[in-house]
Amino acid sequence: MRSIQHPYLLFLGDAADPLAAKVAQGIVDWRPEFCVGQLRLPNCNADLGLEEMTLAEAREAGAKTLVIGVANRGGVIADSWIEILSEALIQGYDLAAGLHNKLADVPQLADLSAQNGRTLFDVRHPTDNFDVASGTKRKGQRLLAVGTDCSCGKMYTTLAMEKEMQARGLKASFRATGQTGILITGNGVSIDAVVADFISGAVESLCPDNEADHWDIIEGQGSLFHPSFAGVSMGLLHGAQADALIMCHEPTRTHMRGLPHYALPAIEECMEANLNAARLTNENARFVGLSINTSKMDEAAADAYLKDLSRQFDMPAVDPFRSGVGPLIEAL
Amino acid sequence: MRSIQHPYLLFLGDAADPLAAKVAQGIVDWRPEFCVGQLRLPNCNADLGLEEMTLAEAREAGAKTLVIGVANRGGVIADSWIEILSEALIQGYDLAAGLHNKLADVPQLADLSAQNGRTLFDVRHPTDNFDVASGTKRKGQRLLAVGTDCSCGKMYTTLAMEKEMQARGLKASFRATGQTGILITGNGVSIDAVVADFISGAVESLCPDNEADHWDIIEGQGSLFHPSFAGVSMGLLHGAQADALIMCHEPTRTHMRGLPHYALPAIEECMEANLNAARLTNENARFVGLSINTSKMDEAAADAYLKDLSRQFDMPAVDPFRSGVGPLIEAL
Repeated sequence: MRSIQHPYLLFLGDAADPLAAKVAQGIVDWRPEFCVGQLRLPNCNADLGLEEMTLAEAREAGAKTLVIGVANRGGVIADSWIEILSEALIQGYDLAAGLHNKLADVPQLADLSAQNGRTLFDVRHPTDNFDVASGTKRKGQRLLAVGTDCSCGKMYTTLAMEKEMQARGLKASFRATGQTGILITGNGVSIDAVVADFISGAVESLCPDNEADHWDIIEGQGSLFHPSFAGVSMGLLHGAQADALIMCHEPTRTHMRGLPHYALPAIEECMEANLNAARLTNENARFVGLSINTSKMDEAAADAYLKDLSRQFDMPAVDPFRSGVGPLIEAL
Repeated sequence: MRSIQHPYLLFLGDAADPLAAKVAQGIVDWRPEFCVGQLRLPNCNADLGLEEMTLAEAREAGAKTLVIGVANRGGVIADSWIEILSEALIQGYDLAAGLHNKLADVPQLADLSAQNGRTLFDVRHPTDNFDVASGTKRKGQRLLAVGTDCSCGKMYTTLAMEKEMQARGLKASFRATGQTGILITGNGVSIDAVVADFISGAVESLCPDNEADHWDIIEGQGSLFHPSFAGVSMGLLHGAQADALIMCHEPTRTHMRGLPHYALPAIEECMEANLNAARLTNENARFVGLSINTSKMDEAAADAYLKDLSRQFDMPAVDPFRSGVGPLIEAL
């Protein structure tokens, strides 16, 4: 897709609580330089600490896109938002959202967008036509985060690695494969929404040929061991042609996300399955480290656990939130 | 989707050669009782040996659906077909096609379909909304054909197994996962055209709970070792929850279909990868036999090869076209 133009004005709507604005929070955390301010409706219970701005004030400050950084129950566009979204289009904003229903399916927004020459970005709904994957080796280096389960830290890990690599003067680009990552960075492919035949092809287009010393840091999705989504994870793994893999894991989880009757795989088993599959399109694929979400463990338990893992697998094991991703980068 | 109503009148259009009418040929081969006749345009170079009928004659003989059983170059709807397709809708036919572009996207056909209360079946483009897979074990028995590559005999094998099982008085239903299989049987899901998140869920809906002694005989797609399509194969494997797997292979192929730089996997490696993945959703999954397309080998070489395989894997190895699938059924 065409990139979403920044700077952004972040729309928090009538967020019920801070968690409802977690997409906006992600943008502020990872791309503060994209954010000129926040726009809230009465009864909004989230606050990013950004300057409160009207549409006109933010335009004046350079904002190009109004990003809907809030999810209400059901993840749909609320009727109470339509007036301000319409006014934004009239004032020259593009709109961007990662909701289940589409901005483009709201007739008033579609009409105003066309009349004003604006773009509606429904990042959960890819509009590009992708090619079937060729499997042809591409120039440049690629890293992919994989996981024992969904929602165990793959986006956080890869965003943190991009940031730290760039801080060290290395060439690195985060490649978003989910709607939050796309809204944060302004580009990417919502890979689980692509037609099945084109999963790997879409990933190939997401991280094309690049300089020999450039790293694509690719956000992973799902798990080869998740019975609902493993096809997505498999296609992503093949399309990524990863040189380096990071295993992400949340050690206190008792079952696969959403499926109480499915246990988590052992880390070792999960690494072996990912490595075997990855080597189909890159025979040099290898694991370089583990990224563990220890937020539900106390510090002593977390430290001991990470040290054990590091010894067991003979590679760095970090919690990127607690102690950063430096050792993962040194392992590349 | 709603089932396509039979009997069919098979439309061969202006097929350039018999191969262009292979979908229609498949229907005649596997569901002769569905076919009342054929309708050909001038310059048609395919002939199924069915009675030539006009639209009116076939309606008189009971035909309910005009099935487009021909693919021209590009797999699109030809302008020269529109007149007869329109007339069919006026006479009360539904239309069914498995082409890249949709009948429903031709305004004249969409209008006539609505005006006459008819249905347009674009079987390559699923219109159902599927749930995400639950991974919950379903009642009844399931068999899935998997392969070392695409187009190596999975549909033929599973259709032959259904036919032979029914002839032996066993309860068996072929479950189509590709457009040709759907047009042959009138039902199924074109699994590679489903949105990635719903691959496994679509397969779960395709072969729901059934009687304990009923076998769903599920058509496979692609290969876990095909860099373009393995995500589809993986999701299909998990959604199928197969009790029994059949390995399909074409032994003279020198590379993966469409990818000259990718070698075929060893049969043993391919079986191991499929079995490991299958056991995520059915811990009792097992291979019961091999189905080999030996059409490019002479009879002595084919016999020797099948005997070797059968010894090596300690299970039946057959060519379903040459010698039938009896031994595979006895192995269930």
